[in-house]
Amino acid sequence: MIINGKDWRTIWLREDGVSVGVIDQTKLPYEFKTCVLRSSEDAAKAIKYMIVRGAPLIGVTGAYGLMLAIQKDSSDTSIIYAKKHLESTRPTAINLSWALERVSKKVLPLPQTQRRDAAREEAALIAQEDISVCESIGGYGLQILKDISERSSKGTQEPINILTHCNAGWLATVDWGTALAPIYKAHRSGLKVHVWVDETRPRNQGAALTAFELACEGISHTVIVDNAGGYLMQMGKVDAVIVGTDRTTRAGDVCNKIGTYLKALAAKDNSVPFYVALPKSTLDWTLIDGITDIPIEIRSEKEVSNIRGQLIQEDKKKEIVDVSLFPLSSRAFNPAFDVTQSRLITAFITEIGILEPNENSLRRLS
Amino acid sequence: MIINGKDWRTIWLREDGVSVGVIDQTKLPYEFKTCVLRSSEDAAKAIKYMIVRGAPLIGVTGAYGLMLAIQKDSSDTSIIYAKKHLESTRPTAINLSWALERVSKKVLPLPQTQRRDAAREEAALIAQEDISVCESIGGYGLQILKDISERSSKGTQEPINILTHCNAGWLATVDWGTALAPIYKAHRSGLKVHVWVDETRPRNQGAALTAFELACEGISHTVIVDNAGGYLMQMGKVDAVIVGTDRTTRAGDVCNKIGTYLKALAAKDNSVPFYVALPKSTLDWTLIDGITDIPIEIRSEKEVSNIRGQLIQEDKKKEIVDVSLFPLSSRAFNPAFDVTQSRLITAFITEIGILEPNENSLRRLS
Repeated sequence: MIINGKDWRTIWLREDGVSVGVIDQTKLPYEFKTCVLRSSEDAAKAIKYMIVRGAPLIGVTGAYGLMLAIQKDSSDTSIIYAKKHLESTRPTAINLSWALERVSKKVLPLPQTQRRDAAREEAALIAQEDISVCESIGGYGLQILKDISERSSKGTQEPINILTHCNAGWLATVDWGTALAPIYKAHRSGLKVHVWVDETRPRNQGAALTAFELACEGISHTVIVDNAGGYLMQMGKVDAVIVGTDRTTRAGDVCNKIGTYLKALAAKDNSVPFYVALPKSTLDWTLIDGITDIPIEIRSEKEVSNIRGQLIQEDKKKEIVDVSLFPLSSRAFNPAFDVTQSRLITAFITEIGILEPNENSLRRLS
Repeated sequence: MIINGKDWRTIWLREDGVSVGVIDQTKLPYEFKTCVLRSSEDAAKAIKYMIVRGAPLIGVTGAYGLMLAIQKDSSDTSIIYAKKHLESTRPTAINLSWALERVSKKVLPLPQTQRRDAAREEAALIAQEDISVCESIGGYGLQILKDISERSSKGTQEPINILTHCNAGWLATVDWGTALAPIYKAHRSGLKVHVWVDETRPRNQGAALTAFELACEGISHTVIVDNAGGYLMQMGKVDAVIVGTDRTTRAGDVCNKIGTYLKALAAKDNSVPFYVALPKSTLDWTLIDGITDIPIEIRSEKEVSNIRGQLIQEDKKKEIVDVSLFPLSSRAFNPAFDVTQSRLITAFITEIGILEPNENSLRRLS
């Protein structure tokens, strides 16, 4: 998608053919910078420190990370070690282990001399498939948005209001995004949309990334604090909620950014449809009950106590600084995800179409 | 309550007998400063810019503001003008108009020469009554917490976990607080409590004020982002939610800080009892349906886009600065309150005891 008038992807094989470029998402929205990953350690760090984030993009970065490891040492030991190391960086998103498994399954049966090229091809294929999947999700989601617009008493001249949580936009994938893909498709097809962007504390991916994406594409949007969504639904100002997912059980329970569950409850309470954009790669067929079975990553309490922003002071350089929001005399606790049970979900928007949130329906993705 | 080992109230008549002292709550938790109010304009500004905040304290500040106006000019015109001006500062909390009405009703029938003393007495009485009301709420709430602790399978040796939103502590009142009064009473009576403190975006009154209050009193607490409460309830880590209210309809619908509604939904969904600490002064007998009838204050979008904190930079002065969280290319929307309908409330903790959330029961307060 577009940044400063130029078309970008979040991750790419660089022209040298041996290193990988990524957009540094920790600097957005104030600075647009890219990083080079030259080793699997670089890739692991990029995931761990959230230079790249978003379940699909984490998966693709993992795949390229394994490729980088194989370039240095194509032995079984090297591959198994790198896979384990990359897998340990973020525990919740299933895409990471899925992509690592896929690359290693592809290369391990091959002679060492062929592993390098095979890994590169497989990583590129995973990236390309991710783009296709997102485009398909966008297409099916667009149909939902068109239906909402047509049924709306406001008429098609008024924008429909979509609320989204965190960033499941193109920055969370290679291109297009999952939850935002239908919005991009809608905007490009001339359907009027307005997006309520949850800021998404503690890391503010909504305010920093989703708002940035939408601004770059010229899509009407408004940032709100995470507390405000319930009020907007009570006031009839939300026509649909669309979010992403980091891991989905076969029963249709969705693990997504912390706070998603609260929006699902409010949507249910106000009869607002609640959609989850679901690439097949986020499905974990081994799990049923999301609340008891999905490991929830607990991140640093500093993400709660400290925040990054641009200094607002006259006559001073507009520096990016970290500030602390409360003193060390108070501790913090920082779970990164919560689980939204299938009973709260209207439907899944997948690459093969709209699916009901139950095991029978999800089987169509297997 | 205690700050730095000394007992404080949030508002007091100063020794000169003609000016009013308040704690400047915009500087907490990093700086403890007090302000002097010498005119009703000072009082109006203190309310408007949230130097004082919290429905009960806003009411008391309004009463003292009217006293300050009468000290300068005790004519009917002056009183009516000051009342109107003070009332316009914050539209949602009912306590403000309630307290202003009470003082003006007291003084307007009197000859001008007696109005000054009468206003001072009435304001002091309102402040004193607020303290008594909060203490009573604390006492009744303590009984609830004791019952929870005794019924708990964890036994009384494990702390009970209370989640609270925003600041309905003593800083929101004259002393003791509403939602936090039961927690202070519990702590002083030796009952083990731990408080989950919602940071409460956009103004972070939880992280800045509630955490500060609890730290000063030595009460175990943990700050969480507003998104995290649902997860904690799913995990069984919340034994009760207690919040305050800015305005309550006679049907028992509660208007409180934005985001309260989302926590009430999560509490209901996880069978966690949801209590509202309700001083009689927040009841608006003229209203029934909270969602359609209560005016919701929309505050500046800068409260969403900008945040205040202490610079974290080595070798630099630990300045308090404002930073912006996203560029001006994105707009924000900032409703300050939402409505939690009575169907989501377990009970009201009031100064006359525990009341069911319905009109019949609330009538006992009239």
